[in-house]
Amino acid sequence: MNRICQLFGIQYPIIQAGMIWCSGWELASAVSNAGGLGIIGAGSMYPDVLKDQIQKCKAATSRPFAVNLPLIYPSIEEHIHTILELKVPIVFSSAGNPATWTEHLKSNGIKVVHVVSSVKFALKAEAAGVDAVVAEGFEAGGHNGREETTTMCLVPDVADALKVPVIAAGGIGNARGVLAAFALGAEGVQIGSRFVATPESSAHQAFKDEVISAGEGSTRLSLKALTPVRLLDNNFARQVRAAEDAGHTVDQLQSLLGRGRAKRGMFEGDLQEGELEIGQVSSQIKEVKPAAAVVAELVEGYLELTRGAEDPRFHW
Amino acid sequence: MNRICQLFGIQYPIIQAGMIWCSGWELASAVSNAGGLGIIGAGSMYPDVLKDQIQKCKAATSRPFAVNLPLIYPSIEEHIHTILELKVPIVFSSAGNPATWTEHLKSNGIKVVHVVSSVKFALKAEAAGVDAVVAEGFEAGGHNGREETTTMCLVPDVADALKVPVIAAGGIGNARGVLAAFALGAEGVQIGSRFVATPESSAHQAFKDEVISAGEGSTRLSLKALTPVRLLDNNFARQVRAAEDAGHTVDQLQSLLGRGRAKRGMFEGDLQEGELEIGQVSSQIKEVKPAAAVVAELVEGYLELTRGAEDPRFHW
Repeated sequence: MNRICQLFGIQYPIIQAGMIWCSGWELASAVSNAGGLGIIGAGSMYPDVLKDQIQKCKAATSRPFAVNLPLIYPSIEEHIHTILELKVPIVFSSAGNPATWTEHLKSNGIKVVHVVSSVKFALKAEAAGVDAVVAEGFEAGGHNGREETTTMCLVPDVADALKVPVIAAGGIGNARGVLAAFALGAEGVQIGSRFVATPESSAHQAFKDEVISAGEGSTRLSLKALTPVRLLDNNFARQVRAAEDAGHTVDQLQSLLGRGRAKRGMFEGDLQEGELEIGQVSSQIKEVKPAAAVVAELVEGYLELTRGAEDPRFHW
Repeated sequence: MNRICQLFGIQYPIIQAGMIWCSGWELASAVSNAGGLGIIGAGSMYPDVLKDQIQKCKAATSRPFAVNLPLIYPSIEEHIHTILELKVPIVFSSAGNPATWTEHLKSNGIKVVHVVSSVKFALKAEAAGVDAVVAEGFEAGGHNGREETTTMCLVPDVADALKVPVIAAGGIGNARGVLAAFALGAEGVQIGSRFVATPESSAHQAFKDEVISAGEGSTRLSLKALTPVRLLDNNFARQVRAAEDAGHTVDQLQSLLGRGRAKRGMFEGDLQEGELEIGQVSSQIKEVKPAAAVVAELVEGYLELTRGAEDPRFHW
C-alpha cells in the first residue's frame, strides 16, 4: 500500500497545499471529503481565526485534514495550543527549524510533515523525527528555496537520501505531473496552484481569474535578497525587478514590499499592487472547478496514464 | 511507433545533447552505435575541426547521428556547407532564429530540430518548419532561457502547444527522469550531463570527476545579465556572483568572463577559474561509465519502471 495513504489514513496520496489567504476550511474539507488530504494554511490567520477555521473544518468533514504551520509565525505557541486542543491529526510545518516542535507534536499523537527545498534540510527534518517530507521544487508558487533545485532533480535527490516517504511539490497540476512525480520517486503529491482556482478557495475571484489566464513565463522568482517568492507578473513584481536591477538594498526592498501585500493581492484582489503568489504550473490551469472535480480528474487521469495501453508514446 | 524513433531512424528515443568541449565524434558515435542518437557539438569547433569530427563519426558508425549548431556561430555558413557536403542526416539548431536556416537544410533532405526554452520560441520553431523541438528546462546545464521555466512545466506546455513531437531536456539523467519526461508529454529525451561523465566524452578528466562528486545545490544559473548559463560552483562562479551582487555592468561582467573560460574549465580542466557548464542532475551522477552502458541502463530502467508491477508506489 502507498505509504502516504497509510500514514494519513486517506484514499489518494493527493495533498492540497496549505496556502496563505487561499486555503481555509472550505477548501481543506472539500479536498478531504474527496479522498485527498486538505490543509488549512495557518500562516495568514490570527489565533482566533485558526481556531474558528479548524472547528468549521471538523464540522464539514469527518476525514483527516491538516494544518500548515510556518514555524516563523510570531504567535506560534498559540497556534500549537489550538492544534493540540482541537486534536488536529496532522501538521505540515514549513519555514523554520523542524527540531523545535516536531517532538512535542508527535508526543501528542500528531503526524508531522516538514516542507523542504534541499537535501540538506530534508536530512535535518528526518533527523528531527518527521513522518514524511514535502520536497518542493523551484517552480512552486510562493516562498521558495535558495538552491533553486527543480522538482525533476529535488524529488529523486531527496528520495535517495531519506527513509521516510517523500511528497513532491512544485509544477504539479494535472495527472501528467502526478505520474512524473511518482516516476521520480515521490509517494504523494502536494498541489497548490490548481486548488487556488476552485470555488472553495478563499482567494479573491479576480486572482482566480488571473491564475487561469496565466501562460508559460508569467511567473518569476522574486525578492531573492529577502525571502525568494514566486509571483505572477504585475506592476508590483515589475517594481521589485526594477529595484533589484538598480541594486537596491535589503532595507529598500523591505520598504517597497511593505506590509499586507499578499493579502492585498490574493485576498482583496488588487491585481496590480498586490503580491500574487502562484506556481509556474498556472500555465496549465484553464478553468475554475470544484475541488472534488480536481481530485477526481487527477485520480482518473493518473489511472488512465498508468494503464497507458492506448498511448504509443510509452512503448518504444 | 514512437515518433522520434521514426523521425531519426533510431532504436531508442534517447538523444545525447550536443555540448561544447564535451561531445565530439567518439561520444556521438558511441551513443548512435548503442541505439540512441549521438550529436557532435559544433559550437566549440573551428570549421576544419567540425569537418574532421564528422568524417571520424561516419567512419565509426553506420547509424544516424546529428550535429548541434548554435545559429549565432560566427562562421555558420562554413559549418552549414560542411554539413551538406558530408551529408549529415540531422541538425539540432539552437541559440538563434530557426527561420534563417531550417528551410535550406530541409530542402537538402536534412531533418531539423530546434532547441527552445519557452512556448513562444517553440511556436516560432514549428512555424519555421522544424521536424521536432527540444524543450529544455531551467535545470539544464549550459545556456538557458530567460523565462526560467522548469522541465516539469515547459514540457507539457510545449507539448500542448505544438503538433510536432517534443524532446524533453533538463534534469534527466536516469530512467526515473525518462519516465517523468514521457509522463509529461515528451516523445524523446535529450541528455547532456550524464554523457559528460563517460570515457568517450572529450571533457577533461578533472571535470568528469567534479561532475560525479557534485551534489544537490552545486550548480547555479549565472551571468543572467549576459546570457544565462548554468555553472558548477567554483572560484569563477563565486566571482561572478559577487560582481552581480555588487551591481556590476554588462561590460564589467563581460570583461570578467573574458574569452575561452569554457574551454579552460571543461576541456583543459581548470576547475577553479574555468566555466564548468553542467545541469542540476549532476547530483544523481555517481560514476564515469561508457556511453553504451548509460544507454542500456536508461532503456532497461525505463522498461522496469513501466512494467512497474513490483513497485507498490504506483498502485494506490
